[in-house]
Amino acid sequence: MKESIEHALEVRLDRASSIPLYRQLAEAVRAQVRSGSLTRGMKLPASRVVASALGLHRRTVVQAFHLLESEGWVVSGVGQGTFVAGRDGFGSNGAAPGLSAPSAGAKAPEGAFSWDGILRRRPALFPEPWRYWTQARESADQIRFTGATADPSFFPTEDFRAIVDEVFRDHGPAALEYGPAEGYAPLREWVVERLHGRGLTVDPDQVLIVTGSQQGLDLVSRLLLAEGDVALVEEPGYSNGFRLFQANGARALGVPMDEGGLRLDACEELCAAAAPRLLYLMPIFQNPTGLSLIEDRVPSLLEICGRHQVPIIEDQFDSDLYYDGAPPRPVKTQDRDGRVILLGSFSKILFPGLRLGWLVVPKALITPLRELKQMADFSSGLLAQSAMNLYCRRGLLDLHLARVREIYGSRLRVMLASMEEHFPPEVRWTTPQGGLTLWVTLPEGMDSLELLRHSREAGVDFSPGPLFFPNGGGTRHLRLSYIRETEERIRRGVAVIGTLLESNRNRAERTSAAGPFF
Amino acid sequence: MKESIEHALEVRLDRASSIPLYRQLAEAVRAQVRSGSLTRGMKLPASRVVASALGLHRRTVVQAFHLLESEGWVVSGVGQGTFVAGRDGFGSNGAAPGLSAPSAGAKAPEGAFSWDGILRRRPALFPEPWRYWTQARESADQIRFTGATADPSFFPTEDFRAIVDEVFRDHGPAALEYGPAEGYAPLREWVVERLHGRGLTVDPDQVLIVTGSQQGLDLVSRLLLAEGDVALVEEPGYSNGFRLFQANGARALGVPMDEGGLRLDACEELCAAAAPRLLYLMPIFQNPTGLSLIEDRVPSLLEICGRHQVPIIEDQFDSDLYYDGAPPRPVKTQDRDGRVILLGSFSKILFPGLRLGWLVVPKALITPLRELKQMADFSSGLLAQSAMNLYCRRGLLDLHLARVREIYGSRLRVMLASMEEHFPPEVRWTTPQGGLTLWVTLPEGMDSLELLRHSREAGVDFSPGPLFFPNGGGTRHLRLSYIRETEERIRRGVAVIGTLLESNRNRAERTSAAGPFF
Repeated sequence: MKESIEHALEVRLDRASSIPLYRQLAEAVRAQVRSGSLTRGMKLPASRVVASALGLHRRTVVQAFHLLESEGWVVSGVGQGTFVAGRDGFGSNGAAPGLSAPSAGAKAPEGAFSWDGILRRRPALFPEPWRYWTQARESADQIRFTGATADPSFFPTEDFRAIVDEVFRDHGPAALEYGPAEGYAPLREWVVERLHGRGLTVDPDQVLIVTGSQQGLDLVSRLLLAEGDVALVEEPGYSNGFRLFQANGARALGVPMDEGGLRLDACEELCAAAAPRLLYLMPIFQNPTGLSLIEDRVPSLLEICGRHQVPIIEDQFDSDLYYDGAPPRPVKTQDRDGRVILLGSFSKILFPGLRLGWLVVPKALITPLRELKQMADFSSGLLAQSAMNLYCRRGLLDLHLARVREIYGSRLRVMLASMEEHFPPEVRWTTPQGGLTLWVTLPEGMDSLELLRHSREAGVDFSPGPLFFPNGGGTRHLRLSYIRETEERIRRGVAVIGTLLESNRNRAERTSAAGPFF
Repeated sequence: MKESIEHALEVRLDRASSIPLYRQLAEAVRAQVRSGSLTRGMKLPASRVVASALGLHRRTVVQAFHLLESEGWVVSGVGQGTFVAGRDGFGSNGAAPGLSAPSAGAKAPEGAFSWDGILRRRPALFPEPWRYWTQARESADQIRFTGATADPSFFPTEDFRAIVDEVFRDHGPAALEYGPAEGYAPLREWVVERLHGRGLTVDPDQVLIVTGSQQGLDLVSRLLLAEGDVALVEEPGYSNGFRLFQANGARALGVPMDEGGLRLDACEELCAAAAPRLLYLMPIFQNPTGLSLIEDRVPSLLEICGRHQVPIIEDQFDSDLYYDGAPPRPVKTQDRDGRVILLGSFSKILFPGLRLGWLVVPKALITPLRELKQMADFSSGLLAQSAMNLYCRRGLLDLHLARVREIYGSRLRVMLASMEEHFPPEVRWTTPQGGLTLWVTLPEGMDSLELLRHSREAGVDFSPGPLFFPNGGGTRHLRLSYIRETEERIRRGVAVIGTLLESNRNRAERTSAAGPFF
């Protein structure tokens, strides 16, 4: 086994890189499998051996091995060590032939064609630890502070059912035809009218209906990002945003935040140092923190981005969910130069099952984005668009929003009060004015992943901080979503977490304050 | 003007390139505008001057100028010549400032931010001539042999309306939640059962529901193609297929067809010469020709692709629309090695307004494709998937198919008989056994674009051949879609085209036969 040990230790790590060390280590192993230096069945040295040889924490090595195993590159048997699985592995479904396949349901062997070297990207977007962090056990009892989506208990299902039926009656087969690539014209005009009410005047031809705002983000990033480009994102930030940029071949660099939103000094520095091709921003009730960018910062932010020629994607995914007076105006309202692309969604304010969102784009981008949209899925579902248009124009959306704002606002207040009551004084959290989530910061030395393990066992689930950091970090943080649980269950769940925090605190006798949020 | 003439003539054209000369010329002009050699307001030399200086047909130069004008790079006034419009042009909506903007509806000027140099791609996917070729005047009288989509007159709208209502009743708000990225499990299982009936056994976890088969193609091509890669496509072939590959940065090379489908000799040659990263194939009732790949060729095709490590995307978009006995089996049924990705759609057999299709993928691709799908739009609409599942499982799809097969088959026979009656003997056409379209070949010297102009004036529309050739050519061909017009209108429309063909024939006294289809 000496040979394999030497191979596995021939690893150059770049500690200055934004790529986490465990990913660098995993990539080095993959490269050696690909080159044939490591071959099927070889045993890898124990994680502590690798760790000490490379000067890494053992946890980093274990993380790398887990990633490789989740991708099918290595197999490990309890108490037996970790073995190279061959060159064919691609995720748990591409189990290495000849070795115990993790998916027991697999039928006949899949034949001789090797996809190795065929794929132009290996989007290991959701490495193994993420699966644990995001996939809780299914149980009705489990209190879930996860998931930044609306509470289906309040979906206006019956109203919408009647609206859909009306569309069938009035439009007939026309509702089931292909729609135009840029979207159903009346719905695009509704978006224009809506934005007009927020102080923003745009032309209907600047509005593009997309298959959920995630598709809008994908289309824009395909237009603006090439392999190796840098995208700036908030840190902590929306994980499906930065993961998407990474999936499209870009590097996502995090701009630190403070209580007022994006830190402009850091933004300026990164613009100068990294020549980013875009800045992705949730200025209103940001996911995960719930914080908003204070309006004072907007002119400077626009000035910085203008000077460095950086377009801004402004995601106002939940700005209608305000519980404490009207929300700040979109950044786009101050965009004199046409550098801001505005992105909106029906998924958070209404329901996500229709897959509808919208883009407002500078005129120069209308044609290229419409053409990309056409290539991506021709058009968004016309039946869904027609129904959404009718629903909104009847005033039903506003009625619905008035109702859920009250419910969600009340849940937010209950959550804040419960945290005040149950969380140790060293723990800090944000106090959002709207949105879906808030952000908790633990005292130094405490680990949200460890907390999650205990909390899940005690029946309460949440989203650990590392999910929201594009390049590692975040273990002292957690995101709590408060809109999908009842007030009673919110109280109960917060008490459970509070008890765990207290017992940890007593055990460790830690008394240092948490410090700022970020 | 001498200076500008010299600039415009400093053009190196690569006649061996697969990029058409007019595009090369257009790109040369763009490059000179970008570099500042050509500046706003400069007059370009007349097209005949450029043509003679560069040894091009004048039509090529005119085509390049049209393209540039459609993109906003140049402006032309009748009788005044063609002028450089500046560096800001991007399609007709990004009108050049300071010059007459084509879109009269534009409001306030869009400000100072220049998107020039910001976009990472300029998908001029649908250049100006395409707009003319594909966008006929809207008039109820116009007979349309365009559009390879089902006839909405036969959409089972009322049945589907009842099904949607039932989904609302039975699923309630759950139908409006996010669905799983890989798709609604019962619908995926329905696809498995359906394919089982066609002699294909796959696991449910190999099935991915997508937002129309166009999205499936996009996801696969994003996984398999990098900038500059080669994708093999049928020639003539499905334009939204090869345009998509081009939009994703690849070169689409056409493999010629004959009456038996893809020509294997040409496929082998291109595999050896161009190292393609995929072969995109519609083996059953191909769009545009309506022809099927004869089954004898399948083993050799699989062998060739296996030897050259080329994955196959098999698009069986319309294989349920057979009018003359069961269709050939999918290529995938003979794929022992797991190199074929199968793509299907609900848009042609039912209706497109829900945006639903499916992929069957080798196990090695399940995880990467699911992750790409998740990043592209999270999941396809759950309400639509639930309704489609119920509709199919009730047996309603099969009832619907039985009905439309009879109608479409009858329309096909009427079209073939009318062509026999009205078209000159030198004109040839395919005789499909199913699908939506057929393919017409004119005698040498005749031009389908010229025919289209006259035909539209006479109230009949069709799709000219060049739309189906990825790198130019096809002017002697046209595609006729026969499923959206009544038999009476089919007879009338074919007679109109026949008369035009006859008069052209008499004028030119051409008597040479059309030769083979391709």
